[in-house]
Amino acid sequence: MHRTRIRIVADALDANETIARANRADFDRAGVRVVNLMSAPGAGKTTLLERTLARLGHGDGAPRIGVLEGDVQGTLDADRLASLHVPVTQIDTDPGFGGECHLDANMVRSALPEIPLDRIDLLVIENVGNLVCPAEFRVGEDHRVMIASVTEGEDKPLKYPLMFRACELVVVNKIDLLPHLDFDLDRFLERLDAVHPGVPHMLLSARTGEGVDGWCDWLRAAAR
Amino acid sequence: MHRTRIRIVADALDANETIARANRADFDRAGVRVVNLMSAPGAGKTTLLERTLARLGHGDGAPRIGVLEGDVQGTLDADRLASLHVPVTQIDTDPGFGGECHLDANMVRSALPEIPLDRIDLLVIENVGNLVCPAEFRVGEDHRVMIASVTEGEDKPLKYPLMFRACELVVVNKIDLLPHLDFDLDRFLERLDAVHPGVPHMLLSARTGEGVDGWCDWLRAAAR
Repeated sequence: MHRTRIRIVADALDANETIARANRADFDRAGVRVVNLMSAPGAGKTTLLERTLARLGHGDGAPRIGVLEGDVQGTLDADRLASLHVPVTQIDTDPGFGGECHLDANMVRSALPEIPLDRIDLLVIENVGNLVCPAEFRVGEDHRVMIASVTEGEDKPLKYPLMFRACELVVVNKIDLLPHLDFDLDRFLERLDAVHPGVPHMLLSARTGEGVDGWCDWLRAAAR
Repeated sequence: MHRTRIRIVADALDANETIARANRADFDRAGVRVVNLMSAPGAGKTTLLERTLARLGHGDGAPRIGVLEGDVQGTLDADRLASLHVPVTQIDTDPGFGGECHLDANMVRSALPEIPLDRIDLLVIENVGNLVCPAEFRVGEDHRVMIASVTEGEDKPLKYPLMFRACELVVVNKIDLLPHLDFDLDRFLERLDAVHPGVPHMLLSARTGEGVDGWCDWLRAAAR
């Protein structure tokens, strides 16, 4: 069974790549940049987006941001973000058997007609919380960013190397909790560098706002 | 593509159920009880097991525990637990394409010859950190337990309902951090009860040891 399943997934990945390229072409045509945001459940993707959208604002020169929410079920995160007056589109990955643990290019494609590409500069895709499969499926994004929470422990780059390698920026969140944890930040960063040499990182706390300015600058640049 | 993939997974689940029953029969024959421990990455499964094994000890009347470690890659967790002088068997789910995000019954079956069933009373299976797919694959266990960390936020039962429904006990970990978080424990427990009415829970901190005695009692009972 195991061997059979692996072959099937390899086929699916090829189809996924084809559809991801089609998505990317549509985003390019509309002049929309796309960030695929990945993390474990509860690492703070939605809280960081809330904080980010509030800080970037809607004024002159602010990038017009849209959000595509991937969740197994429910609209909790989408509701939180829609209250910040940005267009939010929701994909439920639950097809009846328990839910897909990641977004794939075809799910994003099915959502395209619902995304107001002519009214945004940047689409942030909040992937399903998972450190394995989201890294295996491109969806047509320009940038892949992962959020690692310091509460998850400093071993995570070694345990989920594909995820840490698949991204071009690692946002280290919840640094306000560092005084209350046994988390060794230097060791985490050493391990991150061992798995993905030279990958940039940012330290921040979505809760307190510390370090969020640097992330907003990064997003502004990504939107150009 | 989407429809095709769903049909494949349904077939895989049927085969999985068949193999899970075969595993269960082997465990029963050996008189070994099996706990399938599931959580998000970094929720504290390994730390709780370290604390538990140290506390249960190896003396008269202590259950003889073995551990089956499921990881995408590497033996970090297995090494941590083996240092506590219990038999640890490792399954790497990485078949070359990026790693499976869960254990299935066939992976556990392939590890059976390596597990000293005649020398243990209880096998604790530490699943891959993931709140979606592990809930969909029985592996031959008697009990399914999930660990939810308070750092993950109180929305998780609503976002990953299958996981919270699939388990018969929810261990709420990292309660030492509650004073430093905006986590509303009452709201979390309300949502847990809404998703899985009546499911028991335990509050503990694997780091400080608070509440771990109750968990050890539960494991002792499970081992009988």
